[in-house]
Amino acid sequence: MRLALDLVGIFVFALSGGLVAVRARLDLFGVAVLAWVSGLGGGIVRDVFLGDVPPAGISNPWYVVTVLVAGLVVFAFHGLFVDLSRHRPKLRLQRISESVKYLDAVGLATFAVAGALKAVVLGAPPLAAVFVGGITAVGGGVVRDVLVGQVPEVLRRDLYAVPALLGAAIVVVAAELGQLSFVVVWSAVALVLGIRIAAIVFDLNAPTPIPSRGEAA
Amino acid sequence: MRLALDLVGIFVFALSGGLVAVRARLDLFGVAVLAWVSGLGGGIVRDVFLGDVPPAGISNPWYVVTVLVAGLVVFAFHGLFVDLSRHRPKLRLQRISESVKYLDAVGLATFAVAGALKAVVLGAPPLAAVFVGGITAVGGGVVRDVLVGQVPEVLRRDLYAVPALLGAAIVVVAAELGQLSFVVVWSAVALVLGIRIAAIVFDLNAPTPIPSRGEAA
Amino acid sequence: MRLALDLVGIFVFALSGGLVAVRARLDLFGVAVLAWVSGLGGGIVRDVFLGDVPPAGISNPWYVVTVLVAGLVVFAFHGLFVDLSRHRPKLRLQRISESVKYLDAVGLATFAVAGALKAVVLGAPPLAAVFVGGITAVGGGVVRDVLVGQVPEVLRRDLYAVPALLGAAIVVVAAELGQLSFVVVWSAVALVLGIRIAAIVFDLNAPTPIPSRGEAA
Repeated sequence: MRLALDLVGIFVFALSGGLVAVRARLDLFGVAVLAWVSGLGGGIVRDVFLGDVPPAGISNPWYVVTVLVAGLVVFAFHGLFVDLSRHRPKLRLQRISESVKYLDAVGLATFAVAGALKAVVLGAPPLAAVFVGGITAVGGGVVRDVLVGQVPEVLRRDLYAVPALLGAAIVVVAAELGQLSFVVVWSAVALVLGIRIAAIVFDLNAPTPIPSRGEAA
Repeated sequence: MRLALDLVGIFVFALSGGLVAVRARLDLFGVAVLAWVSGLGGGIVRDVFLGDVPPAGISNPWYVVTVLVAGLVVFAFHGLFVDLSRHRPKLRLQRISESVKYLDAVGLATFAVAGALKAVVLGAPPLAAVFVGGITAVGGGVVRDVLVGQVPEVLRRDLYAVPALLGAAIVVVAAELGQLSFVVVWSAVALVLGIRIAAIVFDLNAPTPIPSRGEAA
Repeated sequence: MRLALDLVGIFVFALSGGLVAVRARLDLFGVAVLAWVSGLGGGIVRDVFLGDVPPAGISNPWYVVTVLVAGLVVFAFHGLFVDLSRHRPKLRLQRISESVKYLDAVGLATFAVAGALKAVVLGAPPLAAVFVGGITAVGGGVVRDVLVGQVPEVLRRDLYAVPALLGAAIVVVAAELGQLSFVVVWSAVALVLGIRIAAIVFDLNAPTPIPSRGEAA
């Protein structure tokens, strides 16, 4: 179950990383590197914090293959974005930004829960397990944004770190009570995803006047 | 004694992080995240380098509570800054920048000594213990500045990393000589703080022509 | 053999870090800090990933001395750059940028091989060992560029991460086959260096339209 969550999270974060690279007009290898960092960054920080080294992000072949597939998908999608909006570059950048937000929401939900689960399994104290879940969820996106010179999403959006910590806390509390089950885990994922998507759709964010650097959209 | 030093350092760095977030016009959650990163970042890097995982910064409830209190204080102070300088936004930004500098000085002094102490206690070699002290002291501020897109203070100020390494070295040498005492530890803190405050007051810095990015002051 | 590779890599990366600091017009201590981060950053990440803490970058005196010597050399060279191009600041910045590229090429080659070697010696799985080599090679440069607010070279250059991973892979495959020898190791170094220098000389890069931030050249 944890592997499935991990792979979904890696896949969507790698997609989002690749799209950010496309938006920043990086070339082929920039896309690959940013997909890799975004997809595996959060999990690598998690494993270092839990003392589980070398991190799965560099030793598990499934993880690496997942990132490569995501990279290929970005190239296919990228063509689509270009075709749909050849003469409207602004629209294209906006569509990429939208896609990145929704992909991030899915990655946030799966990684928060998967990160907390791994921390619980490895015997981390409850408080640490909650934070490990939250850091796994936001870590890859933070590194991605810093590398292309943007202020990270987690600093600019209200309902970003909070639902991640909430999802992780549900898993940790359930584990403490011995009630960790398939239903609990996926409910936690659904809850984080629901809150985050509601935040995007209804724009449930405090004003964020800081302009992003190094991007056109 | 180490816990007291740690909590003081966490508190003042979290304050400085919150103020930097206010200056960068981030919203409520941006302030909380930046306070957390600034207060706990240096100690987390220290614990990873010493192999003491999960890091205390995510597992010790005292640390987390300290950061939360600092966050609340920032909101109170923030109101003050606004009241005092409603019609002079430039003055307000300048005051925030001044406060950040002095808070950083206190955090630098306590973290350099606390970091070196922990490294010595965990049996790190002397040279490593000195660097661990220095990294603990500057780490949180570096991550904070990178996240809001500023060139870190430690790259722009002469007398910043040097007093931190000096304070850490005093602790390590005293430990090697078996002379580690309450007086030595607090003298080291006072020395670092004194040098750093003198550097701020008398502007003892080489010219630093690089303009900071992403800030108005 | 690994120590020799490490010291060469540390020396040239420290030089490149110092030159980047000069180009960014940082003062004396900014140069020292950036030389330290660039020279030792990749190896510190490698050691954290391999669980070999405290990292050699903060506990091995040879490493620290090497960085200090590189710092002194930067000051000597810096004078040269100034003398040669006092009235042509653009030319001077261009010369620094060129030097940084070639120094990076040497560091990339030695660190990729040295990183993979250390991973193999410490018993990391083959896939992890290849990535550890690649991360050791690009890590210091990434941190250096992020600190001065530039999009890292590895995101902007095609033939940067790829030769590093190739060199690491040669070492890992040779180790798996029990064929690790002096000749294999130095051939891997030469191959990475050759590819990277060919890429610089013949400009074998996809277009990289993203403008760097925070630098004049």
